[in-house]
Amino acid sequence: MVFKKITLIGTSTESFDDAVDDAVDRAEATLENVYWVEVEEMGVEIAGAPDREYQAEVEVAFELED
Amino acid sequence: MVFKKITLIGTSTESFDDAVDDAVDRAEATLENVYWVEVEEMGVEIAGAPDREYQAEVEVAFELED
Amino acid sequence: MVFKKITLIGTSTESFDDAVDDAVDRAEATLENVYWVEVEEMGVEIAGAPDREYQAEVEVAFELED
Amino acid sequence: MVFKKITLIGTSTESFDDAVDDAVDRAEATLENVYWVEVEEMGVEIAGAPDREYQAEVEVAFELED
Amino acid sequence: MVFKKITLIGTSTESFDDAVDDAVDRAEATLENVYWVEVEEMGVEIAGAPDREYQAEVEVAFELED
Amino acid sequence: MVFKKITLIGTSTESFDDAVDDAVDRAEATLENVYWVEVEEMGVEIAGAPDREYQAEVEVAFELED
Amino acid sequence: MVFKKITLIGTSTESFDDAVDDAVDRAEATLENVYWVEVEEMGVEIAGAPDREYQAEVEVAFELED
Amino acid sequence: MVFKKITLIGTSTESFDDAVDDAVDRAEATLENVYWVEVEEMGVEIAGAPDREYQAEVEVAFELED
Amino acid sequence: MVFKKITLIGTSTESFDDAVDDAVDRAEATLENVYWVEVEEMGVEIAGAPDREYQAEVEVAFELED
Amino acid sequence: MVFKKITLIGTSTESFDDAVDDAVDRAEATLENVYWVEVEEMGVEIAGAPDREYQAEVEVAFELED
Amino acid sequence: MVFKKITLIGTSTESFDDAVDDAVDRAEATLENVYWVEVEEMGVEIAGAPDREYQAEVEVAFELED
Amino acid sequence: MVFKKITLIGTSTESFDDAVDDAVDRAEATLENVYWVEVEEMGVEIAGAPDREYQAEVEVAFELED
Repeated sequence: MVFKKITLIGTSTESFDDAVDDAVDRAEATLENVYWVEVEEMGVEIAGAPDREYQAEVEVAFELED
Repeated sequence: MVFKKITLIGTSTESFDDAVDDAVDRAEATLENVYWVEVEEMGVEIAGAPDREYQAEVEVAFELED
Repeated sequence: MVFKKITLIGTSTESFDDAVDDAVDRAEATLENVYWVEVEEMGVEIAGAPDREYQAEVEVAFELED
Repeated sequence: MVFKKITLIGTSTESFDDAVDDAVDRAEATLENVYWVEVEEMGVEIAGAPDREYQAEVEVAFELED
Repeated sequence: MVFKKITLIGTSTESFDDAVDDAVDRAEATLENVYWVEVEEMGVEIAGAPDREYQAEVEVAFELED
Repeated sequence: MVFKKITLIGTSTESFDDAVDDAVDRAEATLENVYWVEVEEMGVEIAGAPDREYQAEVEVAFELED
Repeated sequence: MVFKKITLIGTSTESFDDAVDDAVDRAEATLENVYWVEVEEMGVEIAGAPDREYQAEVEVAFELED
Repeated sequence: MVFKKITLIGTSTESFDDAVDDAVDRAEATLENVYWVEVEEMGVEIAGAPDREYQAEVEVAFELED
Repeated sequence: MVFKKITLIGTSTESFDDAVDDAVDRAEATLENVYWVEVEEMGVEIAGAPDREYQAEVEVAFELED
Repeated sequence: MVFKKITLIGTSTESFDDAVDDAVDRAEATLENVYWVEVEEMGVEIAGAPDREYQAEVEVAFELED
Repeated sequence: MVFKKITLIGTSTESFDDAVDDAVDRAEATLENVYWVEVEEMGVEIAGAPDREYQAEVEVAFELED
Repeated sequence: MVFKKITLIGTSTESFDDAVDDAVDRAEATLENVYWVEVEEMGVEIAGAPDREYQAEVEVAFELED
């Protein structure tokens, strides 16, 4: 059994929880067998977005198929 | 005055705030004189739980009695 | 173009999201041209506050005027 | 010449050496031109496995084709 | 569900794998519900031991009973 | 909006600036919507190259399409 | 032979040396077989103490009995 | 003698050396007695700039007047 | 309530304790409401000073007025 | 009593344990009074070696003679 | 095969590339079998030098003779 | 101008200041042109010493002769 980890950054205009969920949603939509997620960084984009954009960088671990 | 720190991981199916509160609740139920808490890690358990389980690892500092 | 970064710690009795917003609100009230914010630390003050006080230490980046 | 790095987690019920080899085997089965591997984390999964499962998270560097 | 983490250092005159197992054995002998272990540091004690003593510092996570 | 980050190592026999540009060129040739790049490590390969080979490991962030 | 490490924070109104000794004194008063101590953090509490309170966070390693 | 450190981010469309110099120039234009500078981070802004914008985050140390 | 943190480097020809106090003295002379101080780095300047100059880099946290 | 630390990288085609021992053997062949060793990094060289070459970077601490 | 790593700081009044080359030149002038170099820190000395002095701290790895 | 850094661990039964001075004394007794010292770690050896032995690991930077 081998896992792979990729790094995604989810975004939300509401909260950090939503930003993490945004990244997890995306991972689950395109990957089978997502096992766990680790939050690496959190930040807020202000100048480059109309509202405060909450961002969460996460590592997503999923099992590779044989 | 001497403090001791222990490491707890709270969990919640709702949010990271609830996961931190879960750990703080547990600490306050069993320890006197909790002073402060530091969030060390956050993650989401997916494969080993029916729903997304938000996890927060925290260090809890409390004063030791003389 | 040169940016400067300062370190603020926002507080809230409600949530970490509010604690981050507290720091961002303060930054935007006194600084022009805030670009982005990075969350550095999160913690909960318990002994020194009537309720749990959520704290978020952030770095605020803003553009310096020429 | 450009290299790319990906993150894999190999597993073994025998040893950490086998867990690293597990990840390297997988990398070499699917990637050309693997150059080197860096061990990032080691751990043991206990509750979610029938036996102790040794895990090694590694970064695998390989050369991209032109 | 709340987990607690403690830090143990296992030792062996044979190998690092044995040093990790030494710490896990001890944890499982005294704790219920050990979930996982993270390797934090590895070293070799030479002057203070008759043979080379392999040491592994690990964090052990276990579920607290309600 | 979700971003993904990948890790590339660019190389140059001239300078670190060229090594970073080498990785960015590669990223832009194969990815749409590259947003920013973070320099993670710099080094010089000497024994495995005819001349000094400057290397720059970078993380490349790009927006995923819906 | 298995060691355990715990985290204490010693305090002193005099000096950091005294703050470390404060934590070591406490450890030796309650634990057998203390082997070594590592200093992790040093700080000064000002608002929450009548005088400057020097604080030293240390990890204390001691041998567990069989 | 007391020093203060501030964090600046210099930018350049040419090179990282120029980005560092940009920050040092700004510091020397507004501060007396700059002693040294430490490079903390380097990156390239791509989406938010017409050309590649090299950025260097530096800490600037200067002596405070009595 | 919002706190701000600044970075100072205190110096002393006597001891690290004095170097930390030097920075705290300076902070308290110019800032209201200093809450706590964290020691970040310690070093000794030798070539650039007639005697050994002990240096302590600290972060000073103080409450901002409304 | 003063200790000095040096950094060695041992290699083995068999295992990480052998790679660490390789470095310790070398240290003990040329240095008196080796006290302890800390493992800093582990990796596998693949492209530049006929077989997988396990590498272990270690810090070796030894007592200096008066 | 055993490697040793040493730490050098190269300097230049021109650029960081030159500062790294300065350290590599020195290493190659006095050591056989230099394999690779890792950049650890970069900074600029201002007060203690007539011009801006770019400094690069590097770790140099070379093979020890049998 | 090229600097070299070496790592020493000074010891004292009195204080951490003395442990640092112990390492600096040793460095200055055997090296020309010591420029500065950075404190890396502090600890207390208890089991392997008749009294508490304060230890300070420092990096010593000195200028290499041409």
